[in-house]
Amino acid sequence: MDKVNLADKFAQFDDLWSPKVAGELDDYEIKLVKLQGDFVWHKHDDVDEMFLVVDGTMTIEFRDRTVNLEAGEFLVVPKGVEHKPQAQAECSAMLFERKGVTNTGDAAPSALTQRQPERI
Amino acid sequence: MDKVNLADKFAQFDDLWSPKVAGELDDYEIKLVKLQGDFVWHKHDDVDEMFLVVDGTMTIEFRDRTVNLEAGEFLVVPKGVEHKPQAQAECSAMLFERKGVTNTGDAAPSALTQRQPERI
Repeated sequence: MDKVNLADKFAQFDDLWSPKVAGELDDYEIKLVKLQGDFVWHKHDDVDEMFLVVDGTMTIEFRDRTVNLEAGEFLVVPKGVEHKPQAQAECSAMLFERKGVTNTGDAAPSALTQRQPERI
Repeated sequence: MDKVNLADKFAQFDDLWSPKVAGELDDYEIKLVKLQGDFVWHKHDDVDEMFLVVDGTMTIEFRDRTVNLEAGEFLVVPKGVEHKPQAQAECSAMLFERKGVTNTGDAAPSALTQRQPERI
């Protein structure tokens, strides 16, 4: 039961699109991720997913619109909704989602697909 | 599915110890709360609870130690663990917890007890 300093945790890694588990709450995980460039279109059929921007800016594309998120803003992507995260410059974000979620959702497995998130 | 700007939401209320629901994720809620002074000792037998400080500083007292949280720091209080939040000066925090949690947990109902959190 130790507190987590977000800046300290983000300073511990540089890899992109690879969420790290920084905390657990019931069956959910608090993950930290650095984003830059384009992710893949995907959806999570059974789980909602929260993106909270901690530093920088990111965009979440939907099939019918685009949402820009700045530091201090969050969006919950509902289950079943296709989305594609992207960031022009490096962005640090906090995710909240149920344990066992695969980052690329229903997309074909690729180099971006992470099976077992690292803990930090 | 609208984004939430934390600063905008915190600017919408002034009451203390009264978490507002700013988002939902599966059976969980993202709540925003302003704290100042001392809350009551309590625990939540069945749910973990996350405190993420957005602005200011707060303290979470446990029976055997005290944790100070500054902006950009979070702590997950495990289910069943007695705790008492407090803040010397006004502090803004984001909570993450399962729907239906009563803020004062197992403590005797009081003026601080909130039954139905407001949505903002």
